[in-house]
Amino acid sequence: MKIEVINTGSELLLGHVTNTHLGFIGQELLGFGLRIERQATVPDGAAIKTALTEAISRNADLTIVTGGLGPTSDDITRDIAAELFGRKLILQPEIYAKIEAYIAKRHIVVPDIIRVQAMVPEGALVLDNNCGTAPGLLIEEKGQTIVLLPGPPRELKPMWRDAFVPWLRNKLAALNRPPTYERVWRILGIGESSVQDKLEEPLKAFGDFEFGYCARPAEVDFRLITTDPAALDRASEFIYGQIGEFIYAENNATIEQIVVSLLKAQNKKIATAESCTGGLVAHRITNVPGASAVFHRGWVTYSNEAKTAELGVPAELFPAHGAVSEEVVRAMAKGALDMAGADIAIALTGIAGPDGGTPEKPVGTVWIGVATARETIATKKLFATERETFKHMASQVALDMARKVLIQTNN
Amino acid sequence: MKIEVINTGSELLLGHVTNTHLGFIGQELLGFGLRIERQATVPDGAAIKTALTEAISRNADLTIVTGGLGPTSDDITRDIAAELFGRKLILQPEIYAKIEAYIAKRHIVVPDIIRVQAMVPEGALVLDNNCGTAPGLLIEEKGQTIVLLPGPPRELKPMWRDAFVPWLRNKLAALNRPPTYERVWRILGIGESSVQDKLEEPLKAFGDFEFGYCARPAEVDFRLITTDPAALDRASEFIYGQIGEFIYAENNATIEQIVVSLLKAQNKKIATAESCTGGLVAHRITNVPGASAVFHRGWVTYSNEAKTAELGVPAELFPAHGAVSEEVVRAMAKGALDMAGADIAIALTGIAGPDGGTPEKPVGTVWIGVATARETIATKKLFATERETFKHMASQVALDMARKVLIQTNN
Repeated sequence: MKIEVINTGSELLLGHVTNTHLGFIGQELLGFGLRIERQATVPDGAAIKTALTEAISRNADLTIVTGGLGPTSDDITRDIAAELFGRKLILQPEIYAKIEAYIAKRHIVVPDIIRVQAMVPEGALVLDNNCGTAPGLLIEEKGQTIVLLPGPPRELKPMWRDAFVPWLRNKLAALNRPPTYERVWRILGIGESSVQDKLEEPLKAFGDFEFGYCARPAEVDFRLITTDPAALDRASEFIYGQIGEFIYAENNATIEQIVVSLLKAQNKKIATAESCTGGLVAHRITNVPGASAVFHRGWVTYSNEAKTAELGVPAELFPAHGAVSEEVVRAMAKGALDMAGADIAIALTGIAGPDGGTPEKPVGTVWIGVATARETIATKKLFATERETFKHMASQVALDMARKVLIQTNN
Repeated sequence: MKIEVINTGSELLLGHVTNTHLGFIGQELLGFGLRIERQATVPDGAAIKTALTEAISRNADLTIVTGGLGPTSDDITRDIAAELFGRKLILQPEIYAKIEAYIAKRHIVVPDIIRVQAMVPEGALVLDNNCGTAPGLLIEEKGQTIVLLPGPPRELKPMWRDAFVPWLRNKLAALNRPPTYERVWRILGIGESSVQDKLEEPLKAFGDFEFGYCARPAEVDFRLITTDPAALDRASEFIYGQIGEFIYAENNATIEQIVVSLLKAQNKKIATAESCTGGLVAHRITNVPGASAVFHRGWVTYSNEAKTAELGVPAELFPAHGAVSEEVVRAMAKGALDMAGADIAIALTGIAGPDGGTPEKPVGTVWIGVATARETIATKKLFATERETFKHMASQVALDMARKVLIQTNN
């Protein structure tokens, strides 16, 4: 299946927004053994027509267009697609009613122009938008398909999974393509090249695989795709034997989801005491629905005074060891555990930069501690990168330490 | 000047790497009043030739190609460009010597094939690479220019600034072209379609503009592009007259950057007390470098007990009004202000969902409070969306309320 992607949006070409859709779509398609052959970015407006025409003339079986379905004057993807295939735009009362309901639910005043989103090219399949007002559209003509998806990621992703993937599965089944099977291992604590070194060569003996890697800050996804599900099971056993301690999840679970589910299963509560991560660990934990059952209290203690006042860190530790030290992180973790009456507590103190580093403690230094009633552990890391990535990497390691402690203490 | 960008690399289409070159190049060009008209991503290999041919046939004055200059078998951009313009590849002894020196300095073993990087198409301008071995190349033919840049960002960026920008400046001076000017207003508190309603028609009287919108959760960028800088100033005055209270920044500043810079300018400290946002507001504030000067302490009080123990929220408020209430958010804000000894405090309590809603307080309800020594204000919002977007939207409004209070209390 020849697939092209067209991302519309002047903001992408002006450098105001980074294109994250291409990566999302590329990874999703890989799960079906499909690849994008080409991608184009065009500004809002008439250039979309040229790009669509070119994709069709290159015999793309599937052209995926993102953006330009909103209500404003530069949102003309819908009109262009209708014109290109000679389809009339027809007002769909059902969609109109949905938009009305969506608006009513939010008690907001919106201008009439938003109702243009209820216009659908004749014969198009409507892809429901449960997170916004603009529905997606899918038009098939002479064996070629174009799919129009909304620009905002929080609308595109659920629409992709809930409305487009079912269509794609049917299409692939109708084409009699042998189904492909995919498994992803999410790995924290060793890098991409170590994973490749340990796994890729030996795995070739277990079956005919396509290998995939996706490295993100402080974690890497290792992906196998094959037409033989039994080979996947054999491979999995080998993979866990080699690097099992570093695998925190399979498929799409995040480290915070794993930590929250371990806490729930063990009926435990967690507390957080953050300096350099500034609330990120608590934010990630509370991104998980139902976190309130396992997380009651957290502190952001950015100053030394706050660490002493809120967590009972002895003030004499700061002149003796510095705020970024094993002694302070242990006191923070133990203080949070006690003050919150929790079963486990995470603490972090470090130098996020860009300023504040010294030769002994350069920017990127972070101490991470995890306390339980049984013991407190602490580790030092160095993430010499920019501020936000540093915060993210530190939170990754902190959550993974909590995961390991929860697994150990439950045995 | 008609500009196209071609990014080569299978990893971009497979979703393993996000394309950050496009954003960098887009912003850099904007600084010269230039815009990218089109961008394509193609896999390594022969597809580069098709993409380059198409750009040239569309009469692109300047085509910027990234990637494919390395030594491995799939790095063929150099050969394709030479072939396309009928230029011979000639070994350049100077570049050869530089590559040798680069390798010697690093005491690394490299395969002979790396020396292919010393091959230069006849008549091409060589762009020095001070951070790697592959030089960039610039070829001009019949008024069209193609520029070949290396794929790794740490090689591309310095080469762009040190070697390509000087060429571009000369070129623009020779062309005598009127530059274009851009301005972006970042807006919080009214939606994309309201902005269009209020601004687009009347602004047509102020000059010849291109309009652009970029909507993100709870905010929208409004962009004007024109060749007349005076028209931009007239427009700006009108825009502030119409929706000034909703504009928190121009160009690329974030709301948290604005809040931190107001706090710094006023020598004030902020504290946070978060329930439903779970640390996100503190996380955003501490993403800003230098936040430690204005932020010392924050709480994540997810349970009622935590709100009482940490912030002194009277326990009787919970049975009387519920945790998501004006009374509780005011007590949280005031408590955080006092406990932290801060000048301003933000508090949030709401129902992030997916569970926990009632008919009176549906999922998405949030009370947001801001306290200063002078007064405490509170507002209720409804963001009926999924959990993470809810948290983000609530944090947006909270930070914007703090911004407005800081501006008012300073007058």
